[in-house]
Amino acid sequence: MPYYIGDVIASEKKLIARTPEAFEKSGIRERLNTEAEEVDENKGEVRLRTGERIPYDILVFATGASVTMPPVPGLDLPGVHVLKTLPDALSIKEAIGSGKVKKAAVIGAGFIAMEMAEAFRTAGVEASLIQQAKLPVRRWDPDYATLVKEELVKHGVHCHPETSPKAVEKGVSSPLRVVTDRGEIDTDLLLVATGVRPETRLAETIGLAVGETRALRVNFSQETSREGVYAVGDCAEVFHRVSQSWTSLPLGDIANKQGRVAGSNIGGTPLLFPGVVGAQSFKVFDLQVAATGLDEGEAKQSGFTPVVEKVTGTPTARSMSRGERIHLKLIADRSTGRFLGAQAVGSRGTVSRINFLSAALWSGLKIDEIAYMDLAYSPPFGGAWDPVHIACHALMRQF
Amino acid sequence: MPYYIGDVIASEKKLIARTPEAFEKSGIRERLNTEAEEVDENKGEVRLRTGERIPYDILVFATGASVTMPPVPGLDLPGVHVLKTLPDALSIKEAIGSGKVKKAAVIGAGFIAMEMAEAFRTAGVEASLIQQAKLPVRRWDPDYATLVKEELVKHGVHCHPETSPKAVEKGVSSPLRVVTDRGEIDTDLLLVATGVRPETRLAETIGLAVGETRALRVNFSQETSREGVYAVGDCAEVFHRVSQSWTSLPLGDIANKQGRVAGSNIGGTPLLFPGVVGAQSFKVFDLQVAATGLDEGEAKQSGFTPVVEKVTGTPTARSMSRGERIHLKLIADRSTGRFLGAQAVGSRGTVSRINFLSAALWSGLKIDEIAYMDLAYSPPFGGAWDPVHIACHALMRQF
Repeated sequence: MPYYIGDVIASEKKLIARTPEAFEKSGIRERLNTEAEEVDENKGEVRLRTGERIPYDILVFATGASVTMPPVPGLDLPGVHVLKTLPDALSIKEAIGSGKVKKAAVIGAGFIAMEMAEAFRTAGVEASLIQQAKLPVRRWDPDYATLVKEELVKHGVHCHPETSPKAVEKGVSSPLRVVTDRGEIDTDLLLVATGVRPETRLAETIGLAVGETRALRVNFSQETSREGVYAVGDCAEVFHRVSQSWTSLPLGDIANKQGRVAGSNIGGTPLLFPGVVGAQSFKVFDLQVAATGLDEGEAKQSGFTPVVEKVTGTPTARSMSRGERIHLKLIADRSTGRFLGAQAVGSRGTVSRINFLSAALWSGLKIDEIAYMDLAYSPPFGGAWDPVHIACHALMRQF
Repeated sequence: MPYYIGDVIASEKKLIARTPEAFEKSGIRERLNTEAEEVDENKGEVRLRTGERIPYDILVFATGASVTMPPVPGLDLPGVHVLKTLPDALSIKEAIGSGKVKKAAVIGAGFIAMEMAEAFRTAGVEASLIQQAKLPVRRWDPDYATLVKEELVKHGVHCHPETSPKAVEKGVSSPLRVVTDRGEIDTDLLLVATGVRPETRLAETIGLAVGETRALRVNFSQETSREGVYAVGDCAEVFHRVSQSWTSLPLGDIANKQGRVAGSNIGGTPLLFPGVVGAQSFKVFDLQVAATGLDEGEAKQSGFTPVVEKVTGTPTARSMSRGERIHLKLIADRSTGRFLGAQAVGSRGTVSRINFLSAALWSGLKIDEIAYMDLAYSPPFGGAWDPVHIACHALMRQF
């Protein structure tokens, strides 16, 4: 009988759509709010914190990622939040719902920070972003990160770039005060969103191999360095089809696919995980932001010689575009013409282009092939030459 | 010096964005409202209707397609329109603008009929669709054509299915009366939108080969059966990468690409047109309608054994979908698992899925590869499992 040892996420059972019935049917025994403390490989048992021992033949690590916290004193004060689990989200929601939060501050400027800045503003709360870098969403081209920043400012988010928090204290006018190297920021709620790292502590106690990425090494069947022990999701590495190397990409869709692959192999139907191309996206207010493949730095690191082109196009035929724009950056390899990656920021239609390009990347196409690829053209959805085609042609002129 | 012999489209010079300056710079001499009546291959001359002769070394046929008219008497009456050229569009616009058109009828139920039904309703004009088939947009699955019909009806379009027009007459209460086998329809304006055929008459006078599609045969350089004579656009065939056969697909984006390929070859830089996968789309009111690749009939005709699956999903994570739906049909080959085609109808995000699938089709991927392909997941733009993935998994269970 398979066991599911849940902790915080499963504790909000009612929020997990269809999961209870699925468990019911499957014969899986779920152990909610249950921490696994030790794996005894000799006996084939998992020891719970309660002391209870659960036997296993096959073991799957799906321990996810843990929030990383900056080395700042005061992050244990009430009103300081992280956003990793459903209870974290509910606790933020409850704070906002209480009506007592007029001002929220976020430390960090990645996906979660962007999405939460929007969520705070939508709830009518003042929002401040505190970040060490000059621009948000570091992985994006500075021109595109600037567009993201403009979108934040346009919607009333207070940006504090190049700012390092030094301490969090109890405030005077507000419950919290963030002391930074550039002054103090008073806030009612503070969200720390400075990233995650693969949660591999239990796995490492039994000596499972960890990659340079600090995530668990797995093969294409999701098996770890130990036979019969699998790993899936944010705690596991994933194969990147463009760099042809194992990387760490803590994204929900990848975790889902890996889970399915591991399950199939465990169930006796061999299935290989084909890897990823690094497609990712987020929304911030009216802006779609997405990327796929490698950026220039990653391309160089993988041995490619990147050639880059940036174009600005429209999501529809120009005559129908109502001022909407898609900014698209393509990266190719100079020696082979192979397409390596793309970034895009813009209106509706932006993520769509990145998905199309992800499929091109998946198959290892060259830029001159994508330049003539067939899209479902009609004026409400694009021009006869799509921004993707135009960017490819511009890139080809550089060769 | 290259010549451009234009007719109706070029006559609306002011409407062709950037074309006049492009001509100016290029040194091309344009001959507007000028009909080429004969090609004298021995002398290498085109004789115009005016009698003037224009010499050539290289000749390009870009004669497009002609409107096909049903064999119905009265289609020459004032108030009967077609929609092929800019003057056609302006004439319809002028009629609507006059305020005298309260009711418009369309014969046909394809792309143009759908788009014009929406245009009429948007202009506050009553719209009727008269068609011989039971459902509009014949190429789509009946379930999906039904959704298109429901969208038309929801927006007040009067549908007259299984109805054959027998004659168009002067009306009594309205300027026009369409007599059908199911009664009479009074209208102020009648649009005939029953399709086009490749315009090859002049090309055939010099014996250029025409395919079964009735379009001009070309090779991958866009050269016709005669050396130094090229053809591009709706008058020329195009290679379909899925059926691996030459077909006729009168779509503007294909024409654009073919023009560029021909121009490159003529200019001395060899370039091959890589073909198409048959991606196409249109918008009707709030519905996006798109398809790519082969439908079941075409798949059978091409020697494949189609396996079909239809799923309904959401354009965003389910929790954010606000009732929006994407209906997606996938077709694969039973013997190889190769993906052959898709159709989709739905909300925002529908065309995006077809474009992604077009890229998969371009590379000849199999269904089990697409089932795990990497998309730029985030809840505003899709679920962790996209409808595309779900459809692939459902399809795989049929093998």
